[in-house]
Amino acid sequence: MNTDAFTPDNDAAFSPGELLERLAEQVDALNRPGAIELALESVSSGRIGVADLYTQVLGPLLGRIGSRWQHGTERVWQEHFASHVVRTIIEALYPIVVREASLAPRNGQTVLLVCPPREEHELGARMLSDRFELAGWNAVFLGADTPLAEIVAAARAVRANLVALSVSTVYERVELRSFIDTLRDALPKTRIAIGGPAFAHDPGAWPAEELLDAAHLGLPGAPPGA
Amino acid sequence: MNTDAFTPDNDAAFSPGELLERLAEQVDALNRPGAIELALESVSSGRIGVADLYTQVLGPLLGRIGSRWQHGTERVWQEHFASHVVRTIIEALYPIVVREASLAPRNGQTVLLVCPPREEHELGARMLSDRFELAGWNAVFLGADTPLAEIVAAARAVRANLVALSVSTVYERVELRSFIDTLRDALPKTRIAIGGPAFAHDPGAWPAEELLDAAHLGLPGAPPGA
Amino acid sequence: MNTDAFTPDNDAAFSPGELLERLAEQVDALNRPGAIELALESVSSGRIGVADLYTQVLGPLLGRIGSRWQHGTERVWQEHFASHVVRTIIEALYPIVVREASLAPRNGQTVLLVCPPREEHELGARMLSDRFELAGWNAVFLGADTPLAEIVAAARAVRANLVALSVSTVYERVELRSFIDTLRDALPKTRIAIGGPAFAHDPGAWPAEELLDAAHLGLPGAPPGA
Amino acid sequence: MNTDAFTPDNDAAFSPGELLERLAEQVDALNRPGAIELALESVSSGRIGVADLYTQVLGPLLGRIGSRWQHGTERVWQEHFASHVVRTIIEALYPIVVREASLAPRNGQTVLLVCPPREEHELGARMLSDRFELAGWNAVFLGADTPLAEIVAAARAVRANLVALSVSTVYERVELRSFIDTLRDALPKTRIAIGGPAFAHDPGAWPAEELLDAAHLGLPGAPPGA
Repeated sequence: MNTDAFTPDNDAAFSPGELLERLAEQVDALNRPGAIELALESVSSGRIGVADLYTQVLGPLLGRIGSRWQHGTERVWQEHFASHVVRTIIEALYPIVVREASLAPRNGQTVLLVCPPREEHELGARMLSDRFELAGWNAVFLGADTPLAEIVAAARAVRANLVALSVSTVYERVELRSFIDTLRDALPKTRIAIGGPAFAHDPGAWPAEELLDAAHLGLPGAPPGA
Repeated sequence: MNTDAFTPDNDAAFSPGELLERLAEQVDALNRPGAIELALESVSSGRIGVADLYTQVLGPLLGRIGSRWQHGTERVWQEHFASHVVRTIIEALYPIVVREASLAPRNGQTVLLVCPPREEHELGARMLSDRFELAGWNAVFLGADTPLAEIVAAARAVRANLVALSVSTVYERVELRSFIDTLRDALPKTRIAIGGPAFAHDPGAWPAEELLDAAHLGLPGAPPGA
Repeated sequence: MNTDAFTPDNDAAFSPGELLERLAEQVDALNRPGAIELALESVSSGRIGVADLYTQVLGPLLGRIGSRWQHGTERVWQEHFASHVVRTIIEALYPIVVREASLAPRNGQTVLLVCPPREEHELGARMLSDRFELAGWNAVFLGADTPLAEIVAAARAVRANLVALSVSTVYERVELRSFIDTLRDALPKTRIAIGGPAFAHDPGAWPAEELLDAAHLGLPGAPPGA
Repeated sequence: MNTDAFTPDNDAAFSPGELLERLAEQVDALNRPGAIELALESVSSGRIGVADLYTQVLGPLLGRIGSRWQHGTERVWQEHFASHVVRTIIEALYPIVVREASLAPRNGQTVLLVCPPREEHELGARMLSDRFELAGWNAVFLGADTPLAEIVAAARAVRANLVALSVSTVYERVELRSFIDTLRDALPKTRIAIGGPAFAHDPGAWPAEELLDAAHLGLPGAPPGA
């Protein structure tokens, strides 16, 4: 553990892009406490908000980790390490999310956040959960690899107004189509919205009304590169 | 989100067992912010240390969640929900772990914390990671479902002195035996220690020198029920 | 490859129990061609019918393989080897199944044979498929690890009268309950029946009308030990 | 079940390409017995040998099934159905493989055929196993999803001269590299060769001496399109 990491240069004002690069450097150097301290300090010092950290820094950082792994420039164990650093950052921000969310008017709506079966990449859904809470929703996060029948049972139990599915790369669209259709049949009165990397870059011909539209839902967080 | 959860009764002095029961109640009521606030406040107010919270409260709580799921009194989605609440508590404590760890003398040793392939229950290893950091180790956490060859590559890259494997219920012992033997052949100079629920209650005839002995390693945290 | 295996003792009349023991010996000796020849020859010589081979010999043999693996007296690779020997026997009998099935009157009914998600043990369902064909059904076998939405889509596409789910040990009953309930909602006019090792020995309080009753369906094959 | 399938037009002399098209038609029509009968009859009538059926017909057919699924023109359940038809064909040919193999001189060598962890596509390895037997090898087939430590244990137990790994698309090359390296360390005297779709079309910069070279090994079966 590099204790230098705990005395970041407080004078520096990072752009989100610079913060992303500096975080990536710490992760590449396997400096877990350093990376986490850098991110948390950026939020607690007011340099960046939680939602913007998610959309402009951590989301793109996760995309880069996944891409480097896919292109063979990063090993599986490095991807595990890096993902866990990002996860700790996200979870360690939760007390701040709760505090900020308690100041926002609640809208009385409940969103269920899930990844479908075999989808193990849940950090996108986890960040989305916090953004929903910040926007006044009650967010119920179930995470990775949730069976269809369990999504149905949970949506009924918590009286979800919206089921937000986060899908990375594991699903072919024809399979996702039949998944969504079955979910819709089982939950005819619940809105269903799909987000995640599989759709962010290329929604293709997917029906627009099924795509999760963060801006339209009023979720905080500027899009990457904004 | 129940904002009452954010004003816990500060006068109450909980025993670990009482804290466990109160946390379980919040989780059963699907009160995620309430459960997390209760746990974090218990640590920040000094009522319980991080390591004891892990060994005496969160470890047993995870055991109870798994057991209720196995006995059919809890649904899969409820188990997902509950595990994620516990995860947020653990990760949100990390800034405290870093702060306390920075006060402890570093021992110059590195431990690699992993779960073998197919083992998805990683929170035990995650808590162990923090306890190693608190005891002065450099802890490298790779988490769930790490392929054997990746454990070998990571152990070499970080020059691990110890590989700590956490195993829940997915492994039959004959398979674990051959897994450990192959790991040992590949890393002849690295100590390998096995922990996790699969061994905590019944080490059976497993060689004692391969079992992770937290007390002998000097890790903080009293055993459950102590 | 031991070519002695191809000249079995044709004089011997094995009981199903003896055939099971002799097959198990060949499998233990890693004699794949010997085991397969012994089984096929037993059927082609008329000593045992396909359906009885399934219910009285291969089913119990698979149970024994699984049990030895669970009790740690067999390694994973031995279980892989043994299962594949049994699989070859079953599949190599298919031309005989087709021939015999073509002599039986067709009943105009279609059964879909599937294992739910994560259930990898499909040989029970595979044998059941042949027994349905022998009884005059049109059997559509999809096998292991079939997603819920795909079961629904397939059942509609082939106009299944019956969906037969085979479940080994991977499912807790509370999860299976919600799986079946969702399937039922999606396919209100289709019968659903559950079979497999998870229920053969202990149906517990599971509703009898949901259990696959081979005798009542008129499937050939005497129960084990009969 | 369409019994017309059992009276194929014996006069027709199919090229492998034509046989592939006719098989694909039967599979698309969900005519399982028809597809199987067509393939088996083509071999038993001497129109095509087992090894050529594998390399020129069934291998390309599996490639087409996988490709249609990936491109979203085929549903998951259709891919399950189609793969199982191909599997039955392969396994039902085993008695012929054994008979032909018993005529070939045995070379005293043992090959272990496996797919690494998470690789579920095992039919390529299964066909390879038969081609090794036809070439005089003792072939030990363990199939899909075999843990690294189990491959090591099995290779030692059967004194394998060669471990043939079949890899489809699940592995990134950097992960496969570390997998092979660890296997090599554990089995320094055993040859290791990699085959399967992941390498057939694009070996990239992978070391040629690690690629499975069927021609060089003397395995029967003309390459696709030959």
